[in-house]
Amino acid sequence: MSSQTHYDVIIIGAGPAGLAAALYTARDRYSTLLLEKNGLPGGQIMLTEHIENYPGFEKVGGFEFVEHMKAQVTNFGAQIVTNQAVTKITRDDGKFVIETNHGEKTFTTQAVILAPGSDYRQLNLPGEAQMRQATRVSYCATCDGAFYKDKHVLTIGGGNTAVEDTVYLATRFCQKTTMIHRRREFRAQKVLVEELHAAAKEHNIDVKLPYVPVEIVPSADGQEIDHVKIKNVETQAVEELKVDGVFIFAGMVPNTKWLAELLPLDEHGYIPADPVTMKTCTPGVWVAGDCRQHAAMQLATATGDGVIAAMGLRDYFRDPSAWSVQPCEEENGGGY
Amino acid sequence: MSSQTHYDVIIIGAGPAGLAAALYTARDRYSTLLLEKNGLPGGQIMLTEHIENYPGFEKVGGFEFVEHMKAQVTNFGAQIVTNQAVTKITRDDGKFVIETNHGEKTFTTQAVILAPGSDYRQLNLPGEAQMRQATRVSYCATCDGAFYKDKHVLTIGGGNTAVEDTVYLATRFCQKTTMIHRRREFRAQKVLVEELHAAAKEHNIDVKLPYVPVEIVPSADGQEIDHVKIKNVETQAVEELKVDGVFIFAGMVPNTKWLAELLPLDEHGYIPADPVTMKTCTPGVWVAGDCRQHAAMQLATATGDGVIAAMGLRDYFRDPSAWSVQPCEEENGGGY
Repeated sequence: MSSQTHYDVIIIGAGPAGLAAALYTARDRYSTLLLEKNGLPGGQIMLTEHIENYPGFEKVGGFEFVEHMKAQVTNFGAQIVTNQAVTKITRDDGKFVIETNHGEKTFTTQAVILAPGSDYRQLNLPGEAQMRQATRVSYCATCDGAFYKDKHVLTIGGGNTAVEDTVYLATRFCQKTTMIHRRREFRAQKVLVEELHAAAKEHNIDVKLPYVPVEIVPSADGQEIDHVKIKNVETQAVEELKVDGVFIFAGMVPNTKWLAELLPLDEHGYIPADPVTMKTCTPGVWVAGDCRQHAAMQLATATGDGVIAAMGLRDYFRDPSAWSVQPCEEENGGGY
Repeated sequence: MSSQTHYDVIIIGAGPAGLAAALYTARDRYSTLLLEKNGLPGGQIMLTEHIENYPGFEKVGGFEFVEHMKAQVTNFGAQIVTNQAVTKITRDDGKFVIETNHGEKTFTTQAVILAPGSDYRQLNLPGEAQMRQATRVSYCATCDGAFYKDKHVLTIGGGNTAVEDTVYLATRFCQKTTMIHRRREFRAQKVLVEELHAAAKEHNIDVKLPYVPVEIVPSADGQEIDHVKIKNVETQAVEELKVDGVFIFAGMVPNTKWLAELLPLDEHGYIPADPVTMKTCTPGVWVAGDCRQHAAMQLATATGDGVIAAMGLRDYFRDPSAWSVQPCEEENGGGY
């Protein structure tokens, strides 16, 4: 790593959104640093073995895709520093000062692109992580539903997404769909629950309440799910279910807690921004990817976000005082 | 081509935005038709020999990129019909009826994604098309500026983009930049023109007024520009200029004229839409890519648009009456 610690732009998070932003800022010859916290760029997409819905790649693994992006951005001169969890961003005399968990070192920059991403909330069941790696446990029906044409999947959850996406999986792909939820009532809107029940018979949806998942048992070779153990919360009876895949709909957690001092967050922790420019309410700070409010949470939309954010730098460096973000002014009277 | 003429969704335009939308709608098992007017999918990107700013591809040709996308969407079952210039879209009893220049055939659909793109306004100079194919004539500094590090380019134009992007090219990449404009005064904002003059000396920008381009003369092998002929409008004297590249900044023309009956267009012909959802003001009609108002006009953002538009279908088919688009209601009192 070079000893330079001041950059034109620092990008926080080296998933697809951050890497796409770096591609554009580095190609525009802005000195660019990507700070990454996990020891390896890529973010969530590294956990995906088969990507078939990124335009241009008929099929690619998450690891390979990230290798391409990494080579692409470093070829243009962006630096990536790993194992740097950002703990604090402060403003000091027109610059941003960025502190990480390493403590002994701070970085300064003129502009910040936030791309820390979001994580799917995991249930931490035995077998969950292993079967996620093998693409047999998923947290996103849009991403992975198409892999389960004429298969049997188990869906877990009780909110709007759980109910909606169970219907989506059952009506568009699956031969059979079993759905469990730990309570007798769904948290989802009534109209969605009615739709679920209406679709149940024709599309072979078996709704089991109140049930919790206990364990996901891999096949001998570790490539498939052998069965899933689920438990009736009232009787404590455990059943074994033969399924091809498991969808866990337990919500998402944006990685933004450490940002609350710098920026307003919405009630779920997402970062509000102008969807046309990716500008946040803080001049000089953009956001890209899954931690953005209203993000579409897809690989192609995360990279698009990153590109848009990066393209804003040029105008900003010309006139930093011209920052105007409609949503902030509307909702907060321009207060921040 | 199958004889089916009714589809869940018809996508108009088979450039990157339309193809990305088709990838998602077809993968969601909606019957999907792409209508393409030029005889070949791909749109403008087909004219690009080297793409190095699409996240995931370190270097790819436009033709090869489109081949990948085409294979990807047809594998999921989308149909592409070429040589179909759409002339009219009307609504009829909850469906859309789409007429093309072929006349004898109409298509019907429940939902429409508009992705007709925009074209760069060309000057139709001798040599322009040939040198565009060889990536020596460009219409987009963000796209192609990085190819001209330490080179000499000629820029042509007098509006904001021309002046801004000339400064961008000169300060970030080029060893020398010659700029011509056919009038003595720029149309661009004063502050930009001042910036141009301020940067001229340090960054070796030669502004020549009033000049027009006459011809772009290729090298013997047709791979490079040998020289460009430019003419002083007042003296009629023709000069030869040795340059490595030419940037023409003459604006863009969205391919939307035929849409005026269906949809409101903005003053430049772009289609207003909610940037979060890509919904237009007409229920059941989305827009994606370079013809969208406020589009970022990059490959990665066009595909992102397409994905977002396609993801809206699910909610729409559940409840077509729930269409709500903020910009339309705000600007037009919900009138359309």
